[in-house]
Amino acid sequence: MLIKIDSREPKSMEMCMQLVDSKIIMERRFMTEGDYVCDEICIERKEISDFCNSIVDGRLNTQMEKMKQNYKNIYIIVVGRIKDRTSDIHENCILGKMTSIVVKHKIPILFADDDFQFCYLVKSLIEKLKGGSENGKENK
Amino acid sequence: MLIKIDSREPKSMEMCMQLVDSKIIMERRFMTEGDYVCDEICIERKEISDFCNSIVDGRLNTQMEKMKQNYKNIYIIVVGRIKDRTSDIHENCILGKMTSIVVKHKIPILFADDDFQFCYLVKSLIEKLKGGSENGKENK
Repeated sequence: MLIKIDSREPKSMEMCMQLVDSKIIMERRFMTEGDYVCDEICIERKEISDFCNSIVDGRLNTQMEKMKQNYKNIYIIVVGRIKDRTSDIHENCILGKMTSIVVKHKIPILFADDDFQFCYLVKSLIEKLKGGSENGKENK
Repeated sequence: MLIKIDSREPKSMEMCMQLVDSKIIMERRFMTEGDYVCDEICIERKEISDFCNSIVDGRLNTQMEKMKQNYKNIYIIVVGRIKDRTSDIHENCILGKMTSIVVKHKIPILFADDDFQFCYLVKSLIEKLKGGSENGKENK
């Protein structure tokens, strides 16, 4: 499995992904949309504080539109909890934006506690979308 | 806004919803599918441990199928974090099931830290689906 990773992502992500699945090959490159790409699958990784900031400055809307124009399967994965945000945006604005993402933009949003969970979600999403999950239990 | 709530839901949920929005009317009744229903919208509330148990015993799959048969708009909201589970199911099984819910079942899944966040998500989902949000900021 080859996953392209945006060059601005943290350097630790390759190691993290290797620990989740050593068969995954990561290729760094500058990407205008999304952070993790595998063929028609595009995943945006948002740390909770960046998620909040991108709501406030409108960047999130632009990113979602760009991803929709260029990829068939789009996902947003938020890493961290609302209470861990450093931005002073109100909790209800974040929750309201989350419902907006699923209802209006029709983009599935998932949540991870840390980058290991994030990497597992990426691997699992790609495997399921490509129909090649090796773990039958997860396909129940 | 009238929301039907399943009679087996915690007694504190009405108070919680009232604090989120005093205009919401809650009506308890026994429901065979879903926990919170407003017209064609059906929301399943899953505390993290119950979410885990329902993966293990296969109940979650049955619940999703029943909801799909009876409602147009279905959502699952998980309350709590993976690390807070009391069940001994492996983290990767939970994450794998989450990707299965969005990829295979096409059901949006949202996450709340507590029941207040849950109630706000319910209110916000219903408002957006019915196109009647009163808070323009959240619709950005």
